[in-house]
Amino acid sequence: MLIRHVDDIEPIAFGNGAQKRVVIGPKQGAPAFVMRVIDLAPGTTSPQHSHDWEHEGLILSGSGTVIGVDGPRDMKTGDAFFIAANEEHYMSNDGPEPLRFACIVPTRGEDTP
Amino acid sequence: MLIRHVDDIEPIAFGNGAQKRVVIGPKQGAPAFVMRVIDLAPGTTSPQHSHDWEHEGLILSGSGTVIGVDGPRDMKTGDAFFIAANEEHYMSNDGPEPLRFACIVPTRGEDTP
Repeated sequence: MLIRHVDDIEPIAFGNGAQKRVVIGPKQGAPAFVMRVIDLAPGTTSPQHSHDWEHEGLILSGSGTVIGVDGPRDMKTGDAFFIAANEEHYMSNDGPEPLRFACIVPTRGEDTP
Repeated sequence: MLIRHVDDIEPIAFGNGAQKRVVIGPKQGAPAFVMRVIDLAPGTTSPQHSHDWEHEGLILSGSGTVIGVDGPRDMKTGDAFFIAANEEHYMSNDGPEPLRFACIVPTRGEDTP
């Protein structure tokens, strides 16, 4: 068993001010899917993109907006989200507090070395 | 895109006083892995078991102990864990506060109808 605290992991900058931590993935022995934790400071966004794999996410703290094919939708702590493959989307922290969410993707969806 | 709050999902009792919510899974369109959120009130445990699929988890609130092949290990809010396939394990809330964690498994690891 492996246990590691999210805040002990070195963050990687991406998007417009976003930070990503690859928490559980192939380096930890995970064979099929990867848990990342993403932080968006107020006023920052994740990249707008689409790809042929799904996202499963959970808002850990703060609130923000996810912009998908249906337009913007608010999300707050405790909200889970599912973004299907090939759905264009991005996340925006337009609130006053830091936004942190977990985001799980198939292994092929996370290319951090 | 689908958004749902964890607390809006009906919990399922399992183990010794544990409650499980299946947050994102095949019913929500997820093709490969399932996000569950599990609550352990103080003094309760998840079932001791092993199985041929992995767990990826994240402590959302509270603290507790995970008992695996290496013996008991403490976990607190913000700790992520990886339990490999076929590793016997269970979780115990031996603290004073409710323990909540996310636990992601491959689709074949979650049989809630």
